[in-house]
Amino acid sequence: MIRIDDFRVVNDFPKPGIKFYDITTLMNNADSFKQAFEELLAAAKAMKPEVVVALETRGYFFGPSLALALGVPFVPIRKKGKLPYNTYCQEYQLEYGVDSIEMHTDAMAEGKRVLIFDDILATGGTASAAIKLVKNFNPTSADVLFIMEITALNGRKRLVEASSVTSLLSI
Amino acid sequence: MIRIDDFRVVNDFPKPGIKFYDITTLMNNADSFKQAFEELLAAAKAMKPEVVVALETRGYFFGPSLALALGVPFVPIRKKGKLPYNTYCQEYQLEYGVDSIEMHTDAMAEGKRVLIFDDILATGGTASAAIKLVKNFNPTSADVLFIMEITALNGRKRLVEASSVTSLLSI
Repeated sequence: MIRIDDFRVVNDFPKPGIKFYDITTLMNNADSFKQAFEELLAAAKAMKPEVVVALETRGYFFGPSLALALGVPFVPIRKKGKLPYNTYCQEYQLEYGVDSIEMHTDAMAEGKRVLIFDDILATGGTASAAIKLVKNFNPTSADVLFIMEITALNGRKRLVEASSVTSLLSI
Repeated sequence: MIRIDDFRVVNDFPKPGIKFYDITTLMNNADSFKQAFEELLAAAKAMKPEVVVALETRGYFFGPSLALALGVPFVPIRKKGKLPYNTYCQEYQLEYGVDSIEMHTDAMAEGKRVLIFDDILATGGTASAAIKLVKNFNPTSADVLFIMEITALNGRKRLVEASSVTSLLSI
């Protein structure tokens, strides 16, 4: 079982008062890395996705591996300005101001079963924007998968448009 | 065999005069995505790495999958300010000005066989900086692997500190 102790806790990063869960220690241990991947893959398989989507940046630490293991295409959601072709763009709220993420307009056909992966569910702002991006393709389902969920931040409540929300760990 | 046509060519991105090779089309086809991964894995196995390192951002599209398949730890090199713990920092030259990439100081033990992965070898600026970062750990070897190499830019010449430089495709 993947454990919360696989993450290094760094206080006051990226700014004072934030308790940051560092996933590099999990990946730096071949056993915990494999274990986390196997648990994510088992959860992903149950959703029968036809496409795996992941969010820049830490979503890419597992998203492509899940797509390869499932034998389906991988689609990256990137920060604004990073994708070279025509994109859908979705704004989301930051503590101060707004930011945007994008998907290529030809990233998938309509009517697919879509799995959206990110590492940690905190406030749910980017995950909510990711679901909105995927909805441009009229998916049959949009399931969201995380390694960890910080329940005190109530991010799950913002993901009402998801078909399902799954996290391996809750803290 | 992975083919150059698996990449979408986008002209004038990110700025006028640049011919950008878009890897999202390769990953959007489950067959070409798997094919590229299998070819990279075969090349990686021959290097017998004990750690896989990849560069932000597109190096993460295959680096973690290679580490998982090889059963070794994965270490991300990130852009400055993104890693939460103590880091080594390495500057590299941009067309105008400098930028920096970082690795955690506890990312690996000394004396390891290290594989460094990135998607495309262009001028070699970031790959050269990545090798310098890895050299902080006195590795036994530092092999560098790319999907594609743009030979006209002579990036390979800047990677003299690498134990070997391999790319699946040359254009």
